[in-house]
Amino acid sequence: MTSPLATFDPKYDLKLEREIDVPVHLVWKAWTTPAHLKEWFVPKPWSISACEIDLRPGGVFRTVMRSPEGEEHDNAGCYLDVVPQQRLVFTDTLLPGFRPAPNPFFTGALILTPVGSGTRYTALAIHGNEETRDSHEKMGFHDGWGTVATQMVDYIKSGAVA
Amino acid sequence: MTSPLATFDPKYDLKLEREIDVPVHLVWKAWTTPAHLKEWFVPKPWSISACEIDLRPGGVFRTVMRSPEGEEHDNAGCYLDVVPQQRLVFTDTLLPGFRPAPNPFFTGALILTPVGSGTRYTALAIHGNEETRDSHEKMGFHDGWGTVATQMVDYIKSGAVA
Repeated sequence: MTSPLATFDPKYDLKLEREIDVPVHLVWKAWTTPAHLKEWFVPKPWSISACEIDLRPGGVFRTVMRSPEGEEHDNAGCYLDVVPQQRLVFTDTLLPGFRPAPNPFFTGALILTPVGSGTRYTALAIHGNEETRDSHEKMGFHDGWGTVATQMVDYIKSGAVA
Repeated sequence: MTSPLATFDPKYDLKLEREIDVPVHLVWKAWTTPAHLKEWFVPKPWSISACEIDLRPGGVFRTVMRSPEGEEHDNAGCYLDVVPQQRLVFTDTLLPGFRPAPNPFFTGALILTPVGSGTRYTALAIHGNEETRDSHEKMGFHDGWGTVATQMVDYIKSGAVA
């Protein structure tokens, strides 16, 4: 069963798109394995102190981001659409079991396409209105998501994701 | 792929459960065909003036409820989990394409189990907090969802759903 993704709307949404020279199947593993995701998912020197993944619609996707000073930010949500090595959609709008979340902010979509032995890597942040889009942009969406994409590629190239 | 449904939590959620003497496959059709759904989905003399169904995760589920005086209420959301004749989960927390919605309220789940030639019919309203649960209850959840279940059974028994 295919899912209709939101059409990317520049008024509401943010997008990071780049070609990376690591293969799709390792990118998928890096995104869907807690032990791997913890190594690259937040710009250093921040770190991920906890990660839970139940890779199915309604299953938990939770990360705890830890500042260099030790302050922790808990981000809980669930997956919505899981097509291995192609598409991963998740949201903080719903908690596991599709329960409405207290602080809905965005839906994220990762779209992977093989390009030779590399990957076209597209990450979307889908928002409900312009204000949320703009605040996400001001929080540093492009720098942040770009930095972690680079960290992920470096991590995969280190040979850690087999 | 199976989905973990929210465990029913009486503190947050509401439930209508009954056994009805119409078969599962006709209940499924009544819920997933706009022309049928319009005939029973709101307590009469209210009516459904429009209904859109794209029966897949992220696909639109929209109904427009019309009061006897002609006032219209537009309810837009999307499906989250679709297992034909077993389970239908939808929410107003996300719009089609999983875009965060402006007025998130609840996730609905319909669970159908065959019992002889009839159906155990379970409808859940899953909320994010007690306040939303209580306001949904005060809006008349039990009367409303009970009335439309009865209307649905009568409509199916009329022979209209083949």
